Order: sequence, then C-alpha cells, then structure tokens
Amino acid sequence: MQKVYLDYAAATPVLPEVIDVMLPFVGDHFHNPSALYSSAIEVHEAIEKARSDIAHWLGGRKEEVVFTSGATEANNLVIKGVLDAFPGSKVLISTIEHESVLNPAREYNCETVAVTSDGRIDLKDLERKIDNNTVLVSILYANNEIGTIQDLRAISALLQKKLQARQKSGNKLPLVLHTDAAQAPSYLDLHVHALGVDLMTLNSGKIYGPKGVGCLYVKRGLVLKPLLQGGGQERGFRSSTENVSGIIGFAAALQVVQESREAEVARLEKLRDDLIARFQNIGGEVNGSTRHRLANNVHVTFPGQDNERLLFALDQKGIMVAAGSACSASKDEPSHVLKAIGLNDQQAQASLRITLGRFTTQEELDSLVRTLHELLKLPTIKS
Amino acid sequence: MQKVYLDYAAATPVLPEVIDVMLPFVGDHFHNPSALYSSAIEVHEAIEKARSDIAHWLGGRKEEVVFTSGATEANNLVIKGVLDAFPGSKVLISTIEHESVLNPAREYNCETVAVTSDGRIDLKDLERKIDNNTVLVSILYANNEIGTIQDLRAISALLQKKLQARQKSGNKLPLVLHTDAAQAPSYLDLHVHALGVDLMTLNSGKIYGPKGVGCLYVKRGLVLKPLLQGGGQERGFRSSTENVSGIIGFAAALQVVQESREAEVARLEKLRDDLIARFQNIGGEVNGSTRHRLANNVHVTFPGQDNERLLFALDQKGIMVAAGSACSASKDEPSHVLKAIGLNDQQAQASLRITLGRFTTQEELDSLVRTLHELLKLPTIKS
Repeated sequence: MQKVYLDYAAATPVLPEVIDVMLPFVGDHFHNPSALYSSAIEVHEAIEKARSDIAHWLGGRKEEVVFTSGATEANNLVIKGVLDAFPGSKVLISTIEHESVLNPAREYNCETVAVTSDGRIDLKDLERKIDNNTVLVSILYANNEIGTIQDLRAISALLQKKLQARQKSGNKLPLVLHTDAAQAPSYLDLHVHALGVDLMTLNSGKIYGPKGVGCLYVKRGLVLKPLLQGGGQERGFRSSTENVSGIIGFAAALQVVQESREAEVARLEKLRDDLIARFQNIGGEVNGSTRHRLANNVHVTFPGQDNERLLFALDQKGIMVAAGSACSASKDEPSHVLKAIGLNDQQAQASLRITLGRFTTQEELDSLVRTLHELLKLPTIKS
Repeated sequence: MQKVYLDYAAATPVLPEVIDVMLPFVGDHFHNPSALYSSAIEVHEAIEKARSDIAHWLGGRKEEVVFTSGATEANNLVIKGVLDAFPGSKVLISTIEHESVLNPAREYNCETVAVTSDGRIDLKDLERKIDNNTVLVSILYANNEIGTIQDLRAISALLQKKLQARQKSGNKLPLVLHTDAAQAPSYLDLHVHALGVDLMTLNSGKIYGPKGVGCLYVKRGLVLKPLLQGGGQERGFRSSTENVSGIIGFAAALQVVQESREAEVARLEKLRDDLIARFQNIGGEVNGSTRHRLANNVHVTFPGQDNERLLFALDQKGIMVAAGSACSASKDEPSHVLKAIGLNDQQAQASLRITLGRFTTQEELDSLVRTLHELLKLPTIKS
C-alpha cells in the first residue's frame, strides 16, 4: 500500500542532506565542545557556525541564539524565565497558544487575549489588557492547528505604543513580545526586527531537521532567568552539554526550508486552495483564516462526522492525517483552539487537520479526496 | 598523527551499532509518537520498548523512566521538581556534586555535606544535617572529576533510619534519595532497589549513545513538579515531542555498556592501576579514593606543573586529556571538587583528569606516559 503522509505539522522526516551533515558529529567529531583540546575546539566552532547560520535567517546576532531541546523547552524558558525575572508581573497570551505556552503561563499572573472567529488576535482586546504590570506578550506566529498567521508587526507596534506611554509615566518595567514560530520557517519570513519580536521559538523537528533540538532567539540585553542551570553553556541561558549533531542538523534544515520557502509557498498554496475547494464541494467547512494562512494547512469540519472514525478509516487506506494537533497527549478533550474560534464540541470532533509538506503531490491529495468521498457516504458509527 | 583520546568522562563516540538502530527513526519512522495513525503508533511502541529496556537495567518499572534532554535537565528536574513540590523544605547535597545539581540547589534551602579527603561522603556529617525539614538528598553515584564511587546503600540506610524516626514523631514529609549516575553505567550496577535510590539521573552522551538525551528514574508515587510543561508527554513529567532516535540510541547504548561492564571493569582497572603506578613513579599524586574508584578514572596532580600547559602540549602530540571536567563553561576557576577534597589552588591547577574508555589500549597509555615524561622535564612556563 502506498502511504500518504499529510501530517507535516506534527512531524517531518529528516532530509537526507541534513542527515549527511549530522553524521560526522555523531561519529568522528563527538568531542565535548567545552573541552580545551583542538578536536573539541573544532566541535565548538561547528556549533558557533550553526548558531551564525541560524542568526542569519533571523536577522539577529549569533549571541542571540540559545539552543534548546525543542520548542516546548524554549516556550517554557520564555514564560518562566521572564516572569521569574520580574516577580508578580503579568503575561498576556492568546486563547489559541500551544500548551507549552498555555500551561506554564497559567502558573503566573496570566490573562488571555481573544481571537476573532478566523483565529486572528483581537487587537482591541490586546490593547485593553496591556496594563502597567504586563511584562510579556506571547503570540503564536502561525497556529499549529488551524494555520492562522498573526500580524506580529501590528502587535509589536501596539506594544511599542503602550510601552512608550508607560515609560513616560516613569514605569520602568519592560514589555517584551515573544512568538512561537515553530510552524513558520518553511513558509514565512523570520526576521525578528521586521516582525518586532524580542523572543522567538524555533523547532528543528518541524522543519525536516532532527527531533529534540530547537532554539530561542533572545534579543540582546533581555533579562531571562535560566531554566536549566549547571555548567553555564549557551552563555548561561541554558546549561547542558550541547546536542552537537542535532544543532548542526537543525541549522542545515533551517537553511533548506528558508531558501526554498517562496517556491514552496507558491506550490503548496495552489495545492491547498484546490483541496479546500474540493472539501467545500463535499460539505466541508474550513476553519481559520483563508487569507492569513500557512501554505500547508487545511483544517476542515465535516458536520455530523466523527473525526476519529475518519482518521482510522483513512489510516487503513494508508493516509495519515490529524484529528487535532499531535502535541497534546490528552487527546480526548476537544481542542482549545477550535473552541476559541467558536466551534462547539460536536464541530470540533468532526474536524480534521491536513498539513502538506515538501513531498506532498497532487496525486496524494487526489487519493485523500477520493477516499474521503467514499467514507463520507458511510453512516457515522454510533457506539 | 595518531590521535589518543583519553577524555571519555567528557564525551563518548556513538557506537556504530547504536547509530544503526537510530537511523530508521531519523528517516522512515519519523512520525510524531503522539499521533493516532498506525505508523505513529509504531514509533510510540518503539519508545515504550526503549523505556522497558532501560527500566530492565535499573530493576524498575517502565513507567518510572522519564526521558529528558540529558543529565543536566534530569538533575534540574529533581532539584526544582522536589523542592517546588514541598516549598520551604531543605535539600542536602555533597560538596562535590555536579554544577547541574549544585547551581539549582543553591536557589533553595540547601546545605552541603562534607566529603573525606578521598572524596567519600562523610556519613556522620550527613546524619547531623538531616533535619525534620529535609526532603531531598542528592549524591553523585560516581564523581565526574575524581571518579570516587559513593556507598549509596549506606546513605540510603541512613535516610531510612532518619525517616522512620521522623515518621514516628508524626512528620509526614518524605525524605528521598537522588543520585546522578551519569558516569556510572559503563562500570557500575544500576539497580535502584539494591542501591536504595528514589531518583536516578542517566545520560546517553557519556555511554556511547547520542548527545541530547538522558532520563530520570522516578520511583512510583513520588511527587515531582514538572519542569517542562505542555503537551503532557512522559506522563506529564516532561512535555515535549520525544527525541525518538535519541531515545532509541540511548537504550541501545545502555544495553551495550551494561552487558559488557564486568569485562570492561576488569580490563580498565588493570590499565588504570598500571597508569597510576607509572604516574606515581614520575612524581604524580593521585586524587580521590584508590579503592572506591571508577575503573576508567585517573586524576593526578603533578606538583609545580601547570595543567593547561600540559594539556596543550599533549594536544600538540595528539593526546586529549582534561584539566577539569569539561562540563564547566567557566574554566578559569579551580574545581570545587578538588577544593572540597583539600587541594589548594596551585595543586588544583597542577592536576589532570585522564579517563579511559572502550577504545583505550595499553599502547595509547604508553604514549601518554612517554609524552608526559618528556614534558615534565621542561621548565614550567611563567607568564
């Protein structure tokens, strides 16, 4: 059976060219980059080269890149690191953030900002909720479930306006903008100054690099309490012997997806829009913004259907899609993202996420539509 | 130039047989283990198999193994996780713990337990310092610098005695024993019940597995606040998409080193003791216990010498050794471990750590001794 993988938002295969650059750092160049002899210094320099390469795509400095074990650690480092550095201050997050922002934020003085029915941040609500005590705003660049892209520039401009007003009144608390950009690098520009962000999370495992590595961009001068303390690696922001081959692979993967992103966006948007149109023809209702949307994301509700039944039936035909995000281990609860954009439980449980990627072809999508067409004619199984 | 690597405590090459089992999970089996389709479930099952395999060597249950990004994260999870779960309570650590225990512990109510001049825990000092408020004791199984092995059974028995007395007086606070066993698996038994430990840190990157992965053994029922919050992976103890290939490689590496450990201990102890004798012949003074010592560790002071000069001169001959542990990014300070066993700054800065491993041969050690012999005749360079 030919397998059709359509869950690229959950995981991506590591590209062969990425594996090629990683392997020397698993074998011959295994040395601890903190050691003092020349072989170790070469490993250290390879890490610093990877750091520079990543900084290039962010338009930042290499010292602003802090390697982590992935997006969850980077997001936890932001929330805990900023709020522990400014005890008692407030964090604002949207109602559609990833659990790795949502769950740590809930342990602090946290308020949520509403989104519109197409999943975009309600800027008026954000403006209202920024008070004299707000130190951090954390907003997903592009949502992992519904693919909605946020206008970070507008959000950043709003924060700047608020901060300036606050500073005039003598308030010295910073007001920083973090974005979890884990889903963004294959399709969006990452330049932090253009976007106006102070902190940005990236994840290798979602961009055809190895799992278990990612980074946090930390704007120079920003105060952040480290989460992992120890040997003082990553300029003290993140202790732990560096995951050398992972870091090398991550940087290589980011280069591949950023270099090819314009072509991929054009190719995938065509496939995506065609798929959306065909879904609508068979009664599907698309969730999230159609305009401000990742090129690879289709999120659709088939009213009256049960998404787990569809998912398992598709799986039997070799077609892999998601019922929600794959990141949540508690899969029985309806998605908080779908709830936030106004879907009820029945609608949420009738929804599928289809995410395309580098290896997705028109034929694969034809096969998906054909199979779904058959499945939707079947009666919904009642337990 | 033939390279001679003698810094196995800092990093180990990944074994070819370990790479072989990892590669399928970088390529074909890249799926997110939290996804619901059959290919993802296979990946999930591979992780659970690895978890069982690791639990086997610990004599624990598979649910007691929590994968992390390495020893630093596992150690931080223990210190912060236990002390945040029991606010205001006290942690006891030895004066020779790794920085990834030492630095987080310092942020809490922490007291240090003295060691004897050969690096063994002073049990009387430990007994004195366990009070009604002590919740956690964290002791390295085998020290990363001087290789001294602690008597965890005796420490555990002491804790049990204290806990029982405390319980009789109505005190309900737990008293748990953690050990950082990062340096242990190649040479020591890891059975947690025999050792009497409640928490144990392991690190893949020190045992011929990939860097960036490790685990924490967490005894069933133990209360621990998670450090990384998010999707709820690892039964909520550690959220983050699993580093699948890393986990698979880690389990394979642990199997290799545990299966071969008795033979390796016999082989390396012979090489180690011969090396120590030859060092003593050229004026070297051995640090740490000679009896309770990792089979691969030689730590020696050459009075009047400068260890950085020796290290760089050896490096020029292709011989890699350490001046301290490689884990500390602040290399200019004399080691806190050597200070704790009574060395002064001059002695500490005249000390080298030589750590042997699977690929170490008699010829390599002959080459080290020959080269050191030449170097020690040179006058110390004064700046």
